[in-house]
Amino acid sequence: MNIKQLKKQEIREKVLTIDTMNPRVKNIEYAVRGPILLRAMELERELKQGVKKPFTEIIRANIGDAHAMGQKPITFLRQVLALCLYPDLLSSSSFPEDAKKRAERILQACEGHSVGAYSASPGIHVIREDVARYIEQRDGGIPSSPENIFLSTGASQAIVTVLKLLVASRTGVMIPIPQYPLYSATLADLNAVQINYYLDEEHQWALDMAELKRALEQARNSCEPRVLCVINPGNPTGQVLSRENIESVIRFAFEEHLFLLADEVYQDNVYAEGSKFHSFKKVLMEMGSPYSEQLELASFHSCSKGYMGECGFRGGYTEVVNMDPAVQQQMLKLMSVMLCPPVPGQALMNMVVNPPQPGEPSYQQFQKEKKTVLADLMEKALLTEKIFNQQPGIRCNPVQGAMYSFPQIQLPPKALERAKELGQAADMFFCMQLLEETGICVVPGSGFGQKEGTYHFRMTLLPPMEKLKTLLNKLSQFYVKFTQQYS
Amino acid sequence: MNIKQLKKQEIREKVLTIDTMNPRVKNIEYAVRGPILLRAMELERELKQGVKKPFTEIIRANIGDAHAMGQKPITFLRQVLALCLYPDLLSSSSFPEDAKKRAERILQACEGHSVGAYSASPGIHVIREDVARYIEQRDGGIPSSPENIFLSTGASQAIVTVLKLLVASRTGVMIPIPQYPLYSATLADLNAVQINYYLDEEHQWALDMAELKRALEQARNSCEPRVLCVINPGNPTGQVLSRENIESVIRFAFEEHLFLLADEVYQDNVYAEGSKFHSFKKVLMEMGSPYSEQLELASFHSCSKGYMGECGFRGGYTEVVNMDPAVQQQMLKLMSVMLCPPVPGQALMNMVVNPPQPGEPSYQQFQKEKKTVLADLMEKALLTEKIFNQQPGIRCNPVQGAMYSFPQIQLPPKALERAKELGQAADMFFCMQLLEETGICVVPGSGFGQKEGTYHFRMTLLPPMEKLKTLLNKLSQFYVKFTQQYS
Repeated sequence: MNIKQLKKQEIREKVLTIDTMNPRVKNIEYAVRGPILLRAMELERELKQGVKKPFTEIIRANIGDAHAMGQKPITFLRQVLALCLYPDLLSSSSFPEDAKKRAERILQACEGHSVGAYSASPGIHVIREDVARYIEQRDGGIPSSPENIFLSTGASQAIVTVLKLLVASRTGVMIPIPQYPLYSATLADLNAVQINYYLDEEHQWALDMAELKRALEQARNSCEPRVLCVINPGNPTGQVLSRENIESVIRFAFEEHLFLLADEVYQDNVYAEGSKFHSFKKVLMEMGSPYSEQLELASFHSCSKGYMGECGFRGGYTEVVNMDPAVQQQMLKLMSVMLCPPVPGQALMNMVVNPPQPGEPSYQQFQKEKKTVLADLMEKALLTEKIFNQQPGIRCNPVQGAMYSFPQIQLPPKALERAKELGQAADMFFCMQLLEETGICVVPGSGFGQKEGTYHFRMTLLPPMEKLKTLLNKLSQFYVKFTQQYS
Repeated sequence: MNIKQLKKQEIREKVLTIDTMNPRVKNIEYAVRGPILLRAMELERELKQGVKKPFTEIIRANIGDAHAMGQKPITFLRQVLALCLYPDLLSSSSFPEDAKKRAERILQACEGHSVGAYSASPGIHVIREDVARYIEQRDGGIPSSPENIFLSTGASQAIVTVLKLLVASRTGVMIPIPQYPLYSATLADLNAVQINYYLDEEHQWALDMAELKRALEQARNSCEPRVLCVINPGNPTGQVLSRENIESVIRFAFEEHLFLLADEVYQDNVYAEGSKFHSFKKVLMEMGSPYSEQLELASFHSCSKGYMGECGFRGGYTEVVNMDPAVQQQMLKLMSVMLCPPVPGQALMNMVVNPPQPGEPSYQQFQKEKKTVLADLMEKALLTEKIFNQQPGIRCNPVQGAMYSFPQIQLPPKALERAKELGQAADMFFCMQLLEETGICVVPGSGFGQKEGTYHFRMTLLPPMEKLKTLLNKLSQFYVKFTQQYS
């Protein structure tokens, strides 16, 4: 009997340990739900148990979760869903006729007329048709085919699926820095090479073409760049790309032989005067040949953001443009292994792309609810920028779109030293201290990536106005105290 | 300018083609939604367009999708869901009090009291608690901790997640043959080594220990076996493991240093007299030390099967036992990248593990609906076996559990030749012909794996009784015709 066998008999080592597990998984980081959130949840439990803290509640400004921050669901969406899930309600007089009509149409399209049946793997066909029509309207009539629409489990799953198709050996994928950490996490999981291109903080987080070129040229030494990811409106940075900028990006992707991924989940969230959302698809098509016929593009949308904020349903879709039909078949196969996206999320997406029309009973209320949410977000975007910029040491670019501010903070040398001793990123140290003293939960910039020597945090716009004001002021005060303490 | 550049200027090659795409994805096969289903959907479209066929409808017996086959949702489940999604209904007198209580409890546990908020990544804590209590009751009081429960997007996502943690370099994973193709697909995606152990068709698809040993020994030459997957009740094979058999499997996994994956999604679907579902967790714990303390196990359940058949909601969970806490943290991180499982599916799972209790208003109806579904399935399991075994050339093992029959069919030599000419597996050829002539959609055995030289198909028990009878008879008749044609 050798030593290993002997040991096995005494205490069997675990098969799966941190040393033997999948190393790619170990390399994944996901800051939005990382150590800060885990600590916040601990603090919440302690508060419940009656432990005294310098605050009475945790304010979760770490994640774009509108309903968690008190935003109410859009009535029409939930009415149709209730009708779909419990069709006995179709005979109830307390639901408007247009909601019933939508529900009946969805149920007709479900196998066995039940949302409990699997759908086709790319989603219910009628809903894919509605998505295509919605895109056509959004893009001023440029055609969209339901066959190129894949519904998904949130936008996240669609992004992972397209990246998975694209990554072969030594594949390089360009992502913005700062980025939404789904990208870096997925690239670690797929063992792809992450190519960072830096957004220009000095110019309102602009996407600079020279920087794209620099990043690509440099990367060509060590990998085969094949994909360019753009997030517009930006997460966490909130910039909204101009049409000219999008055109340049498209020309660049075309010339450099890159597949373009356009993360457009914040397309309804544009606040700044003069800013407008332009879809990559529309610009691409309007640029004409050869771009419109040849550039490969996947664009993503979600029902978690916008005015609906229905994160829990995990609804989303991707539209693919100019994708090789044989690859598209492979994508279908890959999605079929997971059977289908959640059907309630598909149904919800259906109402987002096919909302009540003028003249229908729910139209007025729907429009009012939608506009209220978006106007409120716009006001909070302006307020956030204003309050942060009143505080010396904090500098916040205009929040042109999306749901976050991403201010830069100056940290004093002693804070940097202390963080180093603790083995923490300096902004992680700041955010942890903020959490411990104020209950405010924001995510350090290091979780998204940032230029070396700069420090940031991401905070959502989502707390209700009064709470947001308090929060912004508390945060500024804490910042003053923190910098004094470590000066 | 070199040739490549020149070509790029003329016609830009696609970035992503079948030659340049991720080769692992290309290697994935998923028969349950493969070419047979695609052809069935084409035929459905043709029927709709009025094209004449020798049949009037497609009968989808390819996938365990109860609602698609006309099974009605369990009333209580859908009532609670409608209340959760549209809480205005909480004041309606047409919902029973216990349904309202359940809905209020779920909403209390949601951030912002909305199912539209993200939940914690492993699921809503209250629901994890209920799952743990349910497992304790199922297993005669053996403790289960909510911290070891991870809710998921169907069982499929949980299975993929645990396998992903386990697969490092040259990792071997033992799976039964025939298997549910999620396993082979996931192993291809993860680039793991698939180790086949063959179930014993001559003995009612028994899991034979000598065969397990043979498969493992042989595999040790080419990989590092680390995982043993068991499906109980079996899919597609329907066998239900005896307690003794489970004990042997546990001892084997312990001695051979394997992590055990128990796919127990059909735990409510046991039909044969003398058969009983024993959970791996219960048997493991009752075996005592060293097994109960050391053997690493993950067990999976789903709300897509059982009596509820709510596939569209993508609800599921896994319980991990004896998992290294550091790895469990990594699992949490991995799930957090996808944010959370769909909340309506979590809510549904809550009713499955916490159904109406005696004395509550919904108890009687719930029990009646549940028993009706299960009794119906039992009857159809017996009928299927009986009718197939009346047909010389078809041989069907007893369907002890799950939702499928997996009969063996003798195919005449000329059919084998013809299939070979077409480049098809012989049972794929049979199933395609069956589909074209009768509209019946079943999945060839080659999609699940089978002993070389044997041919099977998988058919669900789910069509309504009268339709199932017709289908079984039509299938037998087609078999006679087919064998004559190719004799």
